[in-house]
Amino acid sequence: MIIVGELINTSRKAVSEAVDNRDARYIQQVAGEQAAAGANYIDVNCGNKVSNEVEIMEWLVNTIQAAVEVPLCIDSPNPAALDIGLKLAKYGTPMINSITDEAERFNAVIPLVQKYEAKIVALCMGDGRMPETAAERMLVVQSLYDKLTSAGVRDEDIYFDPLVKPVSSVGTAGLEVLETIRLIKAQYPKVHFMCGLSNISFGLPNRKYLNRLFVSQTMAMGMDGYILNPTDKGIMNVVYASKALLGIDEYCLEYLAAYRQGIYEQ
Amino acid sequence: MIIVGELINTSRKAVSEAVDNRDARYIQQVAGEQAAAGANYIDVNCGNKVSNEVEIMEWLVNTIQAAVEVPLCIDSPNPAALDIGLKLAKYGTPMINSITDEAERFNAVIPLVQKYEAKIVALCMGDGRMPETAAERMLVVQSLYDKLTSAGVRDEDIYFDPLVKPVSSVGTAGLEVLETIRLIKAQYPKVHFMCGLSNISFGLPNRKYLNRLFVSQTMAMGMDGYILNPTDKGIMNVVYASKALLGIDEYCLEYLAAYRQGIYEQ
Repeated sequence: MIIVGELINTSRKAVSEAVDNRDARYIQQVAGEQAAAGANYIDVNCGNKVSNEVEIMEWLVNTIQAAVEVPLCIDSPNPAALDIGLKLAKYGTPMINSITDEAERFNAVIPLVQKYEAKIVALCMGDGRMPETAAERMLVVQSLYDKLTSAGVRDEDIYFDPLVKPVSSVGTAGLEVLETIRLIKAQYPKVHFMCGLSNISFGLPNRKYLNRLFVSQTMAMGMDGYILNPTDKGIMNVVYASKALLGIDEYCLEYLAAYRQGIYEQ
Repeated sequence: MIIVGELINTSRKAVSEAVDNRDARYIQQVAGEQAAAGANYIDVNCGNKVSNEVEIMEWLVNTIQAAVEVPLCIDSPNPAALDIGLKLAKYGTPMINSITDEAERFNAVIPLVQKYEAKIVALCMGDGRMPETAAERMLVVQSLYDKLTSAGVRDEDIYFDPLVKPVSSVGTAGLEVLETIRLIKAQYPKVHFMCGLSNISFGLPNRKYLNRLFVSQTMAMGMDGYILNPTDKGIMNVVYASKALLGIDEYCLEYLAAYRQGIYEQ
């Protein structure tokens, strides 16, 4: 199970202001809290700072790494920002968020995957097609898998994102994701998964509750990576409890430790 | 989705006392609360009143039906108690809880299934074998399916119980249940499911929490029936939210109605 902490993202107002003020302490505090809460990776996203994204990425990566020794997930649509972030990332194997099967994006990102031997989040999106069904997603998955492995990427370094969409607009959106996970696991047993959750509940009340249940449902299908807020105890409760229920927490030891540490509040 | 309300069971102290005192009002109150909370069936179990179970079953069924017009799930290992309960049950199609692939039990119960054209909960248990893996369960399922359908039972009236066991004793217990559900659905798409939940969390802290997540996980695999306490808002929240997430609640209307009615408390 890999948890990527999502909080260092300049689309969040507090982070954006801290970046504008070069407030290293705030950024380091957010990084430290996520690491302490169990994040295996810390996502770094300053994609909305278009005019000086590269400079800010450099500052963010150095600032975070001065405080915590956690691998980073460098998150940008901009290859130059990815490049500087990956060059500076010094703990563990960095992750790139993300590549797609769109020709331009693929060709821009794949050299960086190779150069840094990075883990890569691969979105189920291709040129001119935004897949709806699991079968449509699998066409993109197969194309991406072939291109990535041909480029020398190991199965274990591929993290497929099945593309979560709102059930409020298409009722089967969740089911298609579950089926995609099942199909990917059956065809490529060594690859991993990564996804964000909040889309699933878009437009509905009590969104956090729906997002949490969707973690337990996708984990039941074999999902093993999430980009989420690890300081949200409610969602981490679900991760620990689901691991116990799914037999990926030997003797339920992690679950019991989380319980003793008071992770469970409700 | 079929919810069987589990509260009228003489293994619960308050119900046992109410039965001993022939306190019709208490029994009717428990029945009414379960129906109001969304139970589609009300389970009637007085199996621990060994000396006069038949007489008590008769009293319970008449007492419940004087208050609520809900189908009943007649729950007993005793064929005579099943018979009287089924004979008196007058709303909808009654359900029998349960049959197994043990020869003696099967032969005692199957005539009642036929006589009352009842729905039947079929436990994945056979003579001398308490299955551990999904594959072992499927051997029992296939045997039961063949015998039940040969006896004239329709697929839609069979409710397989995959036999939930504690993950605290065998770590893969939950996974085997999920895989059993998937295999049954693939082989027999028209049959239904029914199970209790509390076994899954036996021996662990925060049991209600684990039970609830296991509802969302089993529903993701296609489970469509539970014996539970429908007055527990926490677990009914999970049912409504999971239906929305799984696209079996068109336009999320039930979820939204439950939300507006204040089912969601947390």
